[in-house]
Amino acid sequence: MITSRSTTEPTIMECPIGVVGTGVMGASLARNLERNLKQPIAIFDLNQEKVDVLLAQHPEADLRGFSEVGEFVGSLKHPQVVLLMVPAGKPVEAALASLCAELEPGAMVIDGGNTHYIETEKHIAYAAQHGIKFIGMGVSGGEQGALWGPSLMLGGDPSVWEALKPLLEPIAAKAEDGQPCVTLVGSGASGHFTKMVHNGIEYADIELISEAYTLLRSAGLTTKEVATELSSWNQGKNRSFLLESAVEVLSVKDPTHEGSLVDHILDQAKGKGTGAWTVMAGADYGVAVSIIGASTFVRSASSAVREREAWLHPEGEQTPRLNVSPTTIRDAYFTARLIAYQQGMSLLAAASAENNWGINLADISRIWRAGCIIRAGFLGDISAIYENDPESASFTATEPFRGQVIAGMHSLRQTVAGASLAAIPIPALATSLNHQTLLETPRLSTALVQLLRDYFGAHTFERTDAAGSFHIVWEDDRQQIQTSS
Amino acid sequence: MITSRSTTEPTIMECPIGVVGTGVMGASLARNLERNLKQPIAIFDLNQEKVDVLLAQHPEADLRGFSEVGEFVGSLKHPQVVLLMVPAGKPVEAALASLCAELEPGAMVIDGGNTHYIETEKHIAYAAQHGIKFIGMGVSGGEQGALWGPSLMLGGDPSVWEALKPLLEPIAAKAEDGQPCVTLVGSGASGHFTKMVHNGIEYADIELISEAYTLLRSAGLTTKEVATELSSWNQGKNRSFLLESAVEVLSVKDPTHEGSLVDHILDQAKGKGTGAWTVMAGADYGVAVSIIGASTFVRSASSAVREREAWLHPEGEQTPRLNVSPTTIRDAYFTARLIAYQQGMSLLAAASAENNWGINLADISRIWRAGCIIRAGFLGDISAIYENDPESASFTATEPFRGQVIAGMHSLRQTVAGASLAAIPIPALATSLNHQTLLETPRLSTALVQLLRDYFGAHTFERTDAAGSFHIVWEDDRQQIQTSS
Repeated sequence: MITSRSTTEPTIMECPIGVVGTGVMGASLARNLERNLKQPIAIFDLNQEKVDVLLAQHPEADLRGFSEVGEFVGSLKHPQVVLLMVPAGKPVEAALASLCAELEPGAMVIDGGNTHYIETEKHIAYAAQHGIKFIGMGVSGGEQGALWGPSLMLGGDPSVWEALKPLLEPIAAKAEDGQPCVTLVGSGASGHFTKMVHNGIEYADIELISEAYTLLRSAGLTTKEVATELSSWNQGKNRSFLLESAVEVLSVKDPTHEGSLVDHILDQAKGKGTGAWTVMAGADYGVAVSIIGASTFVRSASSAVREREAWLHPEGEQTPRLNVSPTTIRDAYFTARLIAYQQGMSLLAAASAENNWGINLADISRIWRAGCIIRAGFLGDISAIYENDPESASFTATEPFRGQVIAGMHSLRQTVAGASLAAIPIPALATSLNHQTLLETPRLSTALVQLLRDYFGAHTFERTDAAGSFHIVWEDDRQQIQTSS
Repeated sequence: MITSRSTTEPTIMECPIGVVGTGVMGASLARNLERNLKQPIAIFDLNQEKVDVLLAQHPEADLRGFSEVGEFVGSLKHPQVVLLMVPAGKPVEAALASLCAELEPGAMVIDGGNTHYIETEKHIAYAAQHGIKFIGMGVSGGEQGALWGPSLMLGGDPSVWEALKPLLEPIAAKAEDGQPCVTLVGSGASGHFTKMVHNGIEYADIELISEAYTLLRSAGLTTKEVATELSSWNQGKNRSFLLESAVEVLSVKDPTHEGSLVDHILDQAKGKGTGAWTVMAGADYGVAVSIIGASTFVRSASSAVREREAWLHPEGEQTPRLNVSPTTIRDAYFTARLIAYQQGMSLLAAASAENNWGINLADISRIWRAGCIIRAGFLGDISAIYENDPESASFTATEPFRGQVIAGMHSLRQTVAGASLAAIPIPALATSLNHQTLLETPRLSTALVQLLRDYFGAHTFERTDAAGSFHIVWEDDRQQIQTSS
């Protein structure tokens, strides 16, 4: 039975929130809102048929469907709150424009899609011209998360949080201590920026797990044994959704052939862009997100089909078999994972400082404890470190992580060295090792980089023993001149 | 004696080209043009005093100075050609706007600065509205190059090349075979894009040399011995300007203290942004520029002062001394350098294809043989490969490089393994090894990446044994369904 309540009985100012978009994420969030708020939820789609189908599929939910924007807006209580769950780009722009024409000043429009944060800054300014408050919100957890409890990262005017809290806390994932995984992470576009960095960390962790899998296979384990091994890693504070997911997917037999499903999957990886955005943001803000970079570029290299074909079966030397134990690989993975999370936190801190977003890293790690893709057992300890010292330059340099990283570096060194000799590609593990080694090295060869830049580009350099900038007159007498003090 | 010819005798349509900007690059190029074209060259600066100083400093050169744009434009022959040598951003925009008001349709404006290619696309469109042809031109070689022979990479309308060739070929660097290092590399903003990639490769090569320096020092050589060692590497087709530069700068004694200058330089490296732009372009176009990324992010990490302080002197285990010979380090460096150049060429090819720039990689490697910072002995062989096969997916997979890379990979493996165990940071060498290993590995763990993406994001996957896209219904019965064919 297809029912569209909007055509039979008018809904006027009954709904605490309206959702635009009947796709899988919009529909799931609307059902989650209705189930938890126990109030009618308005749902809008330009295509009335999609609205009708959704309502028919979920007769248990009190959803009120609309395909006319005036009626949709009329169904909302005051203050009016609209959640956009439409694709980033033109659809968000178009929806915002038509909503701004109908909503009253003071209304709130939330964009729950993966919009680039620069676009979100534009939308905030556009909406403000109409007296509307625009909130970029990161939603993580996929379809299941949206339906049963996502992690929600809001960015925007602090005044909106009191109004939105009663709507969003009930639908968010709950951490082990019962706290809802939703908050206003900061002002401006910080919500979408935070979700982007979340996805960047996700890229890194997925790549690190995939490299651990390759190493375990090269160490002689079958795919089934790798699943068992990874399952044994997934304990206590080291447990994570991604490790759990890897155990799940590696356990699946191929439905059409012998063996494991993973052995029949094309190895040309794709991405939806948020990894690339994080790399670009790191380059832009001058923050080393090298592990996220390595993980994103692995996907690019894997899809460079013609280049891979050109190198297939090179007539190289025989390389030794990998001689690294599963325990060493495990500790290498745990260490690299912490270093990757740190890179993400450092990017968040830098962007917040530059944009005056006031991002609270304790809150972010707290709401990442459940619901989102990178949820992991150790996020509570990260949150506690930032709670204790909001300006901490490095959670990994702080206990309990400091001891873990120092102990784990030995395994990471052994693993990278072993894989290098055995010709096994482990770009993210190698990058993690080198990034941490850079941080621990008192004197870096970047001194030579600076001197070379002065040699051919007159870019000047600084000294360890005197303030100011210096330049060598290379062409002439190689006198050192001070260019600023 | 301060002479400003413009105020004493009018110059009308005498100059084949006018230069805007009296900075070091503008002045050097103007003097280069005057010396080689043997015609008066107009030079413009908003600040008449700067014009006067420049003319007074170079009484030997027939430079005609202006600080009034109408007079400056009036001094130019037809077709009018203006070379902008002002900082990227607002100065270029402002200069272009005032020139467009004075120049006649058909005039050419060349931007010789490091403008981002997206900006250049906008300038091309703006100038076209006034009938002006805008050409983004990469200039490499620093001050000395600008004065005595730079490498010039032009991008723009093919029709301009015939007019500009007689002006630019005389001032460009000459390769060993006498060919001038200047050409129209492609249409649109491809000139500035090419210069950006040139700088990205430069970042990678500088970092690789710096890592080789660290390794040689760790292997027991003094800085002076490293200079001697690098000098012995700088031979035949392996010679390069950057190796030569490293020998030079490592040979300099500190003017104020004992020992080498490099030992007293602050190790927090900076960049002017073109490395970061290349990383962003690689992320945008989906091309693995991971070595350029690693090299850019090293500079960021080196400048993360608070994070480095937090990790100074960790209470870690003793690591073994580096046990890799200078010959092995040399071959590792040569191999990694080729892999880094290849990443740059792959990015150029991808951007050209996407933007229909028609970039000619044979021409680009040809004009990089002299004048520019990344000039190297092997660029002639690279050019020959692309001359023979413009669509080559990989010059490194083609002889004579193929054999070199295959032979060198053993040294790269030994070097990365040794440095990993000895706790020496070598992010660019490690990234080079892993990138090449990825390309040579028939079956990558990115298959698991794809499966994980389907598990939590329903992103679908492809199979090795069947066409189309597939999805597993994970929540339910784990049936595989085909989502497209």
